[in-house]
Amino acid sequence: MYELEDFGSFHVGGRLIEVSGEPSRTVAYAPGMEIEYDPNGRFRIEQVYVQYFVPRQRRFEPALVLLHGGGLTGACWETTPDGRAGWLHHFLAQGFAVHVIDNVERGRSGFCAVEGVWDGVPLARTLEEAWDLFRFGHPDDFEARVPYPGQRFPIGHLEQFQRQFVPRWTSTSEAQVHGVSAALERIGPCVMVCHSQGGYLGSRAAAAHPGLVRGLVCAEAAAYPDADGLAAGTGFPWLMLLGDYLDRTERWARGSEAARGCAGEIVRLGGRAEVVELPDVGFAGASHMYMMDGHSAGIAAWLGDWIRSRC
Amino acid sequence: MYELEDFGSFHVGGRLIEVSGEPSRTVAYAPGMEIEYDPNGRFRIEQVYVQYFVPRQRRFEPALVLLHGGGLTGACWETTPDGRAGWLHHFLAQGFAVHVIDNVERGRSGFCAVEGVWDGVPLARTLEEAWDLFRFGHPDDFEARVPYPGQRFPIGHLEQFQRQFVPRWTSTSEAQVHGVSAALERIGPCVMVCHSQGGYLGSRAAAAHPGLVRGLVCAEAAAYPDADGLAAGTGFPWLMLLGDYLDRTERWARGSEAARGCAGEIVRLGGRAEVVELPDVGFAGASHMYMMDGHSAGIAAWLGDWIRSRC
Repeated sequence: MYELEDFGSFHVGGRLIEVSGEPSRTVAYAPGMEIEYDPNGRFRIEQVYVQYFVPRQRRFEPALVLLHGGGLTGACWETTPDGRAGWLHHFLAQGFAVHVIDNVERGRSGFCAVEGVWDGVPLARTLEEAWDLFRFGHPDDFEARVPYPGQRFPIGHLEQFQRQFVPRWTSTSEAQVHGVSAALERIGPCVMVCHSQGGYLGSRAAAAHPGLVRGLVCAEAAAYPDADGLAAGTGFPWLMLLGDYLDRTERWARGSEAARGCAGEIVRLGGRAEVVELPDVGFAGASHMYMMDGHSAGIAAWLGDWIRSRC
Repeated sequence: MYELEDFGSFHVGGRLIEVSGEPSRTVAYAPGMEIEYDPNGRFRIEQVYVQYFVPRQRRFEPALVLLHGGGLTGACWETTPDGRAGWLHHFLAQGFAVHVIDNVERGRSGFCAVEGVWDGVPLARTLEEAWDLFRFGHPDDFEARVPYPGQRFPIGHLEQFQRQFVPRWTSTSEAQVHGVSAALERIGPCVMVCHSQGGYLGSRAAAAHPGLVRGLVCAEAAAYPDADGLAAGTGFPWLMLLGDYLDRTERWARGSEAARGCAGEIVRLGGRAEVVELPDVGFAGASHMYMMDGHSAGIAAWLGDWIRSRC
């Protein structure tokens, strides 16, 4: 049972681009529904979709903003591949008003289909890449689906997990930071939980809005703001929350080092930052996708406690 | 206040495709996060995302399935451009368990980024095109934003409306019918409300699942199934629900004629079908996007009555 004071969605931000001088052509939107498609005119791109759920029994005043990682959408917070409730549900039950973002180019925000506006092409992700990048297991063990010992990701449901994958560009970071910023300005005071690529984008947007952000959780951020960005972000507490098996790949050994470096710099600048590895607080076996791991509910409970005590 | 028995989402359907023989290349997912991107492997495409909301006080047993039109996502049922509640909320309040689909290639279902799998390129939509296609006003009156007399679409919020637009292919109908079919098989017994392009895709999927569909509302369908499709769909009632200003454009004059032709054929085959023009039941000024018009709540109430009495 969920008692909601309100729920809904909105789109915010983006910009208009104009196309001119292109020839029109006949296309069929459905059998018999031919139209003369005119590719000229004003197109709106780079807006952001936000869906929100406000519980009747709200027990924390700032909004909670969930920002997905690369190649995923806000759907990653809604359900686990094996069909359990997602962090959206767990944080709602804890009394948070939860705002789920689909960042620029992802999900219900839509992508720019006008050629030449975004550099490069969208990249799709294979299960093979996810297996390594998300630390489910060693690449050599992919075909046999043998995970790292003690791994808690629902490995038996990888194909269902793959249905959540969407393509991603690698050239849209600035537009995405602007998109998240537009969302923050609309949402107001908030604590952000930002995963992977979202950790990089969200921490940049957070640092640019120190008056709105009450706390920032970088859930295995793919990168961190530069020195100027960090200097602007010392007014709220940071948590770098890392999973297990960090030393198994060179990439995540570096990622863990970057998290420590960033936290150290924030503290040096007079701010507050903690680095927590989930195995150290009772959650061994955490993958990069720990919001979907077998112990995801417990991790959400731990994280809710951290937010209530620090933010 | 919304009391929900349950809510959540799932992805369903789609297929795996395999890519081989392509060179890998270095890409940066974030600053300092370079990876060797391997475009070979197995990619999952053409799945469908469904988000569902089950009210505590359920007053209608079959699920209600909402299927968006072309260039839009399930978000079109959530809010109006001027910020009023969408049909999702109105039908929930009427006691329906509402399932909102993002069809193949749209929104959180993701699109296929592997070249050569889908024909053609995605098309984006300008406001100019929407103005004419959605019958807000005469094309000559677009620049001055002068709508048809009595038009109830929130014309003052066209730019906000445009934020909901997403690109669409014109070559994916078969995959989309399969996607909706996979969703129906998962959802079970249902009544479908299918808008515009979704009216074409949804009616084809419905006719292919006569054992699951208890009723079908074609909300200004862009096209209808062929004779074989109609023959399979005589076991449930059809409603062709049309807006206002149908005689203002040749396209919608034809669309209205097609609706009457389809309904006549269903009746001839021994089935049940009604054609209703909204002005005839008290809703003059209805655009093609009547789920967003000023009287959208009243139309939802009328449609709920129709569903309860016929399905």
